[in-house]
Amino acid sequence: MESFTVRTAARAQFVNVTAEVAGIVARAPPATGACLVQVPHTTCGMTVNENADPDVPADILAHLDRLVPRSTTFRHCEGNSDAHIKASLMGCAVVVPVTGARLVLGTWQAVFLCEFDGPRTRHVQVTLLAGVPS
Amino acid sequence: MESFTVRTAARAQFVNVTAEVAGIVARAPPATGACLVQVPHTTCGMTVNENADPDVPADILAHLDRLVPRSTTFRHCEGNSDAHIKASLMGCAVVVPVTGARLVLGTWQAVFLCEFDGPRTRHVQVTLLAGVPS
Amino acid sequence: MESFTVRTAARAQFVNVTAEVAGIVARAPPATGACLVQVPHTTCGMTVNENADPDVPADILAHLDRLVPRSTTFRHCEGNSDAHIKASLMGCAVVVPVTGARLVLGTWQAVFLCEFDGPRTRHVQVTLLAGVPS
Repeated sequence: MESFTVRTAARAQFVNVTAEVAGIVARAPPATGACLVQVPHTTCGMTVNENADPDVPADILAHLDRLVPRSTTFRHCEGNSDAHIKASLMGCAVVVPVTGARLVLGTWQAVFLCEFDGPRTRHVQVTLLAGVPS
Repeated sequence: MESFTVRTAARAQFVNVTAEVAGIVARAPPATGACLVQVPHTTCGMTVNENADPDVPADILAHLDRLVPRSTTFRHCEGNSDAHIKASLMGCAVVVPVTGARLVLGTWQAVFLCEFDGPRTRHVQVTLLAGVPS
Repeated sequence: MESFTVRTAARAQFVNVTAEVAGIVARAPPATGACLVQVPHTTCGMTVNENADPDVPADILAHLDRLVPRSTTFRHCEGNSDAHIKASLMGCAVVVPVTGARLVLGTWQAVFLCEFDGPRTRHVQVTLLAGVPS
């Protein structure tokens, strides 16, 4: 398992980490079948979505705020329950196929860390999983 | 990695792809532990849910439309931000256990491609992952 | 693949299953890279979130009920469409990295079964996936 850190700059922010993940995968042995990208946090998540137009991540973040407003009355006293809920809606990990030491992503896909309670320093853990010939 | 294509017929539609995935898994070596089913797209997703009653996928689609109406004011100029958001809510991949060259699914479970911006031709990529004896 | 059962006690409930999963992983061979934790059900899900404060799972459950009220008019005649939708929002599986026969989770992370249509007896299936040296 390898890891890297991301310093987020706002309370809510999508950070494209595709290049960092691809760099780790580039050193992967031929038997690699997939790459598990996980954050060991409970107020940020991971997702795969469009990178070409920065309005797409902006729209996702804005709409998640409509669905889970920070101002809702919650019990958890830290005032960041919205971030916990958004983290579970996105999930704390993505699994991306790997062939020939390259991530298999569509033309418009990128791997994003989804910050919901920043700015913070976040850790991203990358685990290579073995494939089998199909 | 193997793949197949799905031609969707509506803007929003769940397509049961369990048989196609199971067919690929049926040729898997004994060491296979799981199957990663991923779409390389950003306006469709993957999920596992009930197949027995077609009203279940219909209810999921209808409610996702209530949560993320297409008519919401978004910044992304292509007019399909709702589809990008729904794709991240479902996720672009599922991982299903495999034993004895069979998908391990519950009685009522099926693997669905979730079209949110069709009709389109979609690609589904299936990667077999190696298990270890527990 | 190993499995265990969980008896849920309410219609909606988060059950921390980290100890059960970690027990299975503790017997894993050194080559293990990740652990797939899946439920073969369509009205419960899996997620990773905070365990320290029980108000966090309570807030997540309460807000999922705001987003997907049971009372919404659905077509599925069993009256549990909200549970199917919540299950797909969480997902029916999580994949957690494993190193040295231990789950790699953050300080505040726990693995939860998310019951949305209990009380029921639920099955949790744990599949160990082989890693590759990075």
